[in-house]
Amino acid sequence: MTLWGGRFEGKLDPAAWALNASIGIDQRLASQDVRGSQAWAKALLAAGILTPQEALVIDQGLASIAEEFKNHLFAFTDSDEDIHTAIERRLGELIGSTAGKLHTGRSRNDQVATSFRLWLIENIPTLQAELGKLQKVLIQRAENDLGIIMPGYTHLQRAQPVLLSHWWLAHFWSLQRDWKRFESAAQQCACLPLGAGALAGAPFPVDRSMLAAELGFASVIPNSIDAVSDRDFAVEFLFCSALSGSHLSRLAEGIIIYTSAEFGFFELSDAFATGSSLMPQKKNPDVFELARAKSGVLLGDLVMLLSVLKGLPSAYDKDLQEDKAPVFHAYDTLQTLLPVLQGAISSLRVHPERIQRAIDANMLATELADTLVGNGIPFRQAHELVGKAIRLAGSQQKSLDQLDLPAYQSISPAFQADIYAALTVEKSLERRTVFGGTAPQAVKEQLALAKKLLEQSKLDVG
Amino acid sequence: MTLWGGRFEGKLDPAAWALNASIGIDQRLASQDVRGSQAWAKALLAAGILTPQEALVIDQGLASIAEEFKNHLFAFTDSDEDIHTAIERRLGELIGSTAGKLHTGRSRNDQVATSFRLWLIENIPTLQAELGKLQKVLIQRAENDLGIIMPGYTHLQRAQPVLLSHWWLAHFWSLQRDWKRFESAAQQCACLPLGAGALAGAPFPVDRSMLAAELGFASVIPNSIDAVSDRDFAVEFLFCSALSGSHLSRLAEGIIIYTSAEFGFFELSDAFATGSSLMPQKKNPDVFELARAKSGVLLGDLVMLLSVLKGLPSAYDKDLQEDKAPVFHAYDTLQTLLPVLQGAISSLRVHPERIQRAIDANMLATELADTLVGNGIPFRQAHELVGKAIRLAGSQQKSLDQLDLPAYQSISPAFQADIYAALTVEKSLERRTVFGGTAPQAVKEQLALAKKLLEQSKLDVG
Amino acid sequence: MTLWGGRFEGKLDPAAWALNASIGIDQRLASQDVRGSQAWAKALLAAGILTPQEALVIDQGLASIAEEFKNHLFAFTDSDEDIHTAIERRLGELIGSTAGKLHTGRSRNDQVATSFRLWLIENIPTLQAELGKLQKVLIQRAENDLGIIMPGYTHLQRAQPVLLSHWWLAHFWSLQRDWKRFESAAQQCACLPLGAGALAGAPFPVDRSMLAAELGFASVIPNSIDAVSDRDFAVEFLFCSALSGSHLSRLAEGIIIYTSAEFGFFELSDAFATGSSLMPQKKNPDVFELARAKSGVLLGDLVMLLSVLKGLPSAYDKDLQEDKAPVFHAYDTLQTLLPVLQGAISSLRVHPERIQRAIDANMLATELADTLVGNGIPFRQAHELVGKAIRLAGSQQKSLDQLDLPAYQSISPAFQADIYAALTVEKSLERRTVFGGTAPQAVKEQLALAKKLLEQSKLDVG
Amino acid sequence: MTLWGGRFEGKLDPAAWALNASIGIDQRLASQDVRGSQAWAKALLAAGILTPQEALVIDQGLASIAEEFKNHLFAFTDSDEDIHTAIERRLGELIGSTAGKLHTGRSRNDQVATSFRLWLIENIPTLQAELGKLQKVLIQRAENDLGIIMPGYTHLQRAQPVLLSHWWLAHFWSLQRDWKRFESAAQQCACLPLGAGALAGAPFPVDRSMLAAELGFASVIPNSIDAVSDRDFAVEFLFCSALSGSHLSRLAEGIIIYTSAEFGFFELSDAFATGSSLMPQKKNPDVFELARAKSGVLLGDLVMLLSVLKGLPSAYDKDLQEDKAPVFHAYDTLQTLLPVLQGAISSLRVHPERIQRAIDANMLATELADTLVGNGIPFRQAHELVGKAIRLAGSQQKSLDQLDLPAYQSISPAFQADIYAALTVEKSLERRTVFGGTAPQAVKEQLALAKKLLEQSKLDVG
Repeated sequence: MTLWGGRFEGKLDPAAWALNASIGIDQRLASQDVRGSQAWAKALLAAGILTPQEALVIDQGLASIAEEFKNHLFAFTDSDEDIHTAIERRLGELIGSTAGKLHTGRSRNDQVATSFRLWLIENIPTLQAELGKLQKVLIQRAENDLGIIMPGYTHLQRAQPVLLSHWWLAHFWSLQRDWKRFESAAQQCACLPLGAGALAGAPFPVDRSMLAAELGFASVIPNSIDAVSDRDFAVEFLFCSALSGSHLSRLAEGIIIYTSAEFGFFELSDAFATGSSLMPQKKNPDVFELARAKSGVLLGDLVMLLSVLKGLPSAYDKDLQEDKAPVFHAYDTLQTLLPVLQGAISSLRVHPERIQRAIDANMLATELADTLVGNGIPFRQAHELVGKAIRLAGSQQKSLDQLDLPAYQSISPAFQADIYAALTVEKSLERRTVFGGTAPQAVKEQLALAKKLLEQSKLDVG
Repeated sequence: MTLWGGRFEGKLDPAAWALNASIGIDQRLASQDVRGSQAWAKALLAAGILTPQEALVIDQGLASIAEEFKNHLFAFTDSDEDIHTAIERRLGELIGSTAGKLHTGRSRNDQVATSFRLWLIENIPTLQAELGKLQKVLIQRAENDLGIIMPGYTHLQRAQPVLLSHWWLAHFWSLQRDWKRFESAAQQCACLPLGAGALAGAPFPVDRSMLAAELGFASVIPNSIDAVSDRDFAVEFLFCSALSGSHLSRLAEGIIIYTSAEFGFFELSDAFATGSSLMPQKKNPDVFELARAKSGVLLGDLVMLLSVLKGLPSAYDKDLQEDKAPVFHAYDTLQTLLPVLQGAISSLRVHPERIQRAIDANMLATELADTLVGNGIPFRQAHELVGKAIRLAGSQQKSLDQLDLPAYQSISPAFQADIYAALTVEKSLERRTVFGGTAPQAVKEQLALAKKLLEQSKLDVG
Repeated sequence: MTLWGGRFEGKLDPAAWALNASIGIDQRLASQDVRGSQAWAKALLAAGILTPQEALVIDQGLASIAEEFKNHLFAFTDSDEDIHTAIERRLGELIGSTAGKLHTGRSRNDQVATSFRLWLIENIPTLQAELGKLQKVLIQRAENDLGIIMPGYTHLQRAQPVLLSHWWLAHFWSLQRDWKRFESAAQQCACLPLGAGALAGAPFPVDRSMLAAELGFASVIPNSIDAVSDRDFAVEFLFCSALSGSHLSRLAEGIIIYTSAEFGFFELSDAFATGSSLMPQKKNPDVFELARAKSGVLLGDLVMLLSVLKGLPSAYDKDLQEDKAPVFHAYDTLQTLLPVLQGAISSLRVHPERIQRAIDANMLATELADTLVGNGIPFRQAHELVGKAIRLAGSQQKSLDQLDLPAYQSISPAFQADIYAALTVEKSLERRTVFGGTAPQAVKEQLALAKKLLEQSKLDVG
Repeated sequence: MTLWGGRFEGKLDPAAWALNASIGIDQRLASQDVRGSQAWAKALLAAGILTPQEALVIDQGLASIAEEFKNHLFAFTDSDEDIHTAIERRLGELIGSTAGKLHTGRSRNDQVATSFRLWLIENIPTLQAELGKLQKVLIQRAENDLGIIMPGYTHLQRAQPVLLSHWWLAHFWSLQRDWKRFESAAQQCACLPLGAGALAGAPFPVDRSMLAAELGFASVIPNSIDAVSDRDFAVEFLFCSALSGSHLSRLAEGIIIYTSAEFGFFELSDAFATGSSLMPQKKNPDVFELARAKSGVLLGDLVMLLSVLKGLPSAYDKDLQEDKAPVFHAYDTLQTLLPVLQGAISSLRVHPERIQRAIDANMLATELADTLVGNGIPFRQAHELVGKAIRLAGSQQKSLDQLDLPAYQSISPAFQADIYAALTVEKSLERRTVFGGTAPQAVKEQLALAKKLLEQSKLDVG
């Protein structure tokens, strides 16, 4: 069955049917489509299009269908073109020709946009919850690893000492932005297209505000052409996913590097590591590599829809049918990935002694320069002098704390005996009490703030 | 001059210099970088790192540099690696070695992020203003073209009659979403990275809140590692641009089609049309074709940065330097395009007679079905019957209004004489009074709402 | 069962298993994997690693497994991590511990690359055959529609008359390039990785040339690290698909426009058109819209893999597992789409009278200019004069052939009475006898060439 | 001046002009455009459209213009819309109205496609030469570093020992594929569009084969519509660039990791390293980070053009003007990057002692398993037993060579005293003599092959 056969003489070619049918994808919208139809029946009743009796019968029929879906008893037929057709077909089987009244004033154009938005409204919070759990893991790691000082890297070169907790929290904040962005995407979804008809608006005075309230939409789209063509909400969701994927790829890349034998900072728990079919000794960070890869996958999903939309001319074009596959794919990708990252990170074993070994005195070169600054040397000159000290020390195979004072003074008399006191990691940390800095106290405050925001996020989703 | 030569023996290879130097791109950040430095000097003064005298001299030096940029008198040298280096170099020329104190506690990592964010904070409103002007043009068109009924298309096939004004307004709303999205991107920009140092936080107690207030940032990034690595704000800007580009491509595609000889709805003014070097008769919608193409260009810019970010490991990696080129490119693309679209659309000549000719009675098939619905036939069955009528009429080379009643009744007795009354375009429109529908009254209300929101947008930007 | 459990104490976390397992995707490689294993067993025999008896047992076991797959009798278990594991597990069930000898000297790294390449080697020709069938349809259309003159469009504006056959053939050639490109991609696939081991090469003297010959590879990859990391062949396949998709989008867009009511050049057969759930009169070109959309989908697939590969460090990283999903997706997309386009295009009804009506005399402006050129006026000046004639005619609501000679001569005396003879469509066509031109004779020659090449393509694939 | 003003009353709006004009980009095609015009003049002469005298004057005028470009004396005017217009304008200044005859029978549509293809035909070899130089550097490194055994990594975990030379050569082969791919792209470029006119073919019997021969094209495009719309050659170039970029990103990523303090395998020469504005000790691999980033940039360029092409309808659309910017951008990106990589890699200092230290006995686990295989244990079982040995050794903080025989035999009596002999790195290498394996002898043969192919490549380009 299709919803549109009347004017056609022949049947749709089977290959064309296969290309055209979206049931394989959009059956995920089943419960949303039922809900949307129930609300529509209510609106038709209010508008006087359905009698109370008809509305009741339709509502009950739809409720039965919802039950069938819930219990996996709904039977699709080969002739179900899409989920909307399948449900209307089934409704007819259940309640007879009254079913044919449900589609009055409605088009699949506004119907599918409504169901799809509903799906996202319902499912984005699930994703946010998984993001939140990963944020919580990061917070727990930050709490547990508070005492550990690690080399902070820029350009993958040792830069300055930071707290490991500070590093964990850096990733918390990027996920926090993701969380907010998904929130904003969900708001985009919550604008109601239903009542837009095919493109010109419903021909009956249905109350769209009531429909919105009924279905949990925050507002009503004020232009019926826009209502059936707008896919910004789906693109935004894909963008949030892709950008979040890029954050996860950064986290993953860090962990992959830190679990290499040469770094040796972290060790994967057996439950989140995999081996080699050939090399018995291997313990591979596959899950983090996949996290890194998924970033590319999610970017592909985003490009897919943005490219599909490019250059489309009119209100509704069939091209828009390609909106759901990448959205579901991106959603599933994150839903599969996030729980793994939660487990893999919380079960990660940290090797403080390996981390400590990686901190060398040259990482304190900035402290040394700052000491000179304290003695009145302009920073730019201090930087230059310490640069020369680095070079001199290097030529003697020494680190900065091993270079003796005469050697320093051969570069400049500005180097005084107080420089050695600057060359401790703890000092370096303690000085960075600025908001957002890596001083233990500052990190504790940051941690408290992160916890508060995470708590708040949970309340927001409810 | 570079800001980092001390530890190096040799000079940077010239080809490496050319690859590495970003001055060709980031010189656009000149005024933002000066402002950022002035604020930093103030913060160093407050933290006791600079004496009042030093701070004053630095501030005046920077002010002079700002003047030089403003008057195009600033002279770059071959050895200026980037805009930050150029400004510090020039400051040294102007005020001597005190200049070397400015960079105390600061790194280019936090500095460049600050300047770049400032640039976007300052320039996004300019883009929003251009968007707003285009929205205004759409509103004006909607007002002027209120009386014109056009075929609404889905699948580029005639669907139902709509008001041309309704079509114009559909595009207003997608731009309105863009406007809001840019607003949100600007807010992302307004989180201050300055004070994060290279990655560990400034080693002096600078007041980052004060810095934020001074520079017009709304908040302070609470983690120094995140502060130097976060490029979400730039990606968001590119996403807004790409999605807006896709909206402009839709508008452009519609106009391209409507200006074809076969449609003939619109005619370009000479001021916005171009000709052919070979075919003297051609009048081409180049500007709309370019608008359509730019959608692809903007998608490329977005992919560029998201792909650059993919898999990056640590706090700051040089890869991040590739953030500015696509942002500036996307910005310039829209800034070049939007004024042209404003002019081209406002000067478009509409041919109402051609539009009217394109409305055929078959577009009223839904009305016909609705009439049957009014007579108690379920919509699904009504749809089927009208489909058959379409087929029958087609076989007689007639449109629906030309088919006589016996013919209708040969399909079903449900067709009564009242059907002909339904077959008028005006009726079809009048019935769509639902919020967002295409009834003249509804469109007028929509127009009023659009005007109100546009006014509001302007106030928001100030 | 996994192939790597020995060194691990715990079991893989179920969520990690779900992320990690690729069996849902790579089971499509079953028959290729069996063939690869059979060849490997042969090579191990030749290298003296297996006894003839062991090799025989393994070969027979694998043959049984191949039968099981062929007859859909192969039963996967929950513990099958991937197709390679599943097959080795099954082999053990069938032949006992000798199965454990098969993986000697082999790694999944070289194994999967081999199976995946084999899959493409086998399946690319199927895709080429479908492309070829579409090319054949275009040739048939070109033959059938030879007499029809249509407006050629540039910028979607009427430009110059061309033969409809010429237009069909334009699309033939872009598909011909696609065909060749897939051929080249298949050659990229035909370089053998097997024998590369995990990354260092097999530790036994297996004869890789013999393996290549056995499996139908044209050459052997000369570096074992490259062999396990190279995914160029998959990216090339995706690129061919995306570019071919862009050609199909161009063809589809043309047909969508030409089937609009306003153009009316083409009419879809009922077997390849779809209707609306709301509007009974609609006959929509969904299949062509989907063809257009798939172009974006295929671009997404390409971006996916290229982005996954970006920045990967070493020989084999798990990220490479993400190579198969986009390849299968792109393949299926084209395999679903191409037969539909074949049917939809060959069953398209052409309306010559509508096409003819779209040719107006202004399209002959270039001919007019060329006539002036024949009278000694430089083309640039002739272009200018005809441009003025166009403007003058336009102001009188006339086309060029309706403007009288005095009017022409008011522009320039260069216009002589012979100009009217130039203003026929047939003349315009006949003059374009240049190779590749649209003169009937030239098009017939082009058609003959196209047929010859298509025949040749078929022979190439065999 | 434009080439098309005649029919227009007003002037093009300045903003529209700015959007539309391509002179800022396409002036790079100057010399190619002149050459194309010279060939066209010759063809017009042969076709009897130009007299010998006219052809001579035009040819000389064009030669003068070529000289002006060569000597940077060509003066653009504000009214030059594109390079074609600029050159025709200048020709008119130099030779008077005869210049107006040059464009006879030609359109910018075929002209620009010709010039653009010519540019690529001329410039791709330059890029190939740079690729070839980088390949040569890799070969030299492979020769110099022949004695060095390094850990081969998969999943960034130590896998098996390989020769450093083998690792360098792995990258040689991916660049070799790039080289070939660019060769194939250049062949795509070498199909001549000239003579196609606007879309219908030249109206004079110009000899397109002669034109092709004159300009160095290998063949003539057999359909004039295809000739003006085909941009496959540009997309292919961008694809080659993007895929090559992904190879360079892999090489760069490896070097970035190997130059980290923790790995310490490589050290950058000062000439190719950069420092930090804040941290005096830093020596950053900026050039390799930029190489990695450029991979994303090049992907963006590819997406740009593929997305621009998506959904275009007809022969020539203005959208195609967006083809050149990404091509030039990609070309410049690689031309800037490749020389830096050549210098940076050839000047890299290798630290053999750090590399040696990174090889631990556990990397020989596969050898151990192979030893058991030699004693008749199926590989799968051997893998399992060695896995257990790894676990046991790990629990004793030992590596495999430090575990004593009783401990081994507590796992299985299959472990015999001969196992210790297997646990040497040299043995592991020596066994991998298979073609493409990492045995010293095999690598030398590989090296010889690589050198031969590189030599051959050079001859191919000439």
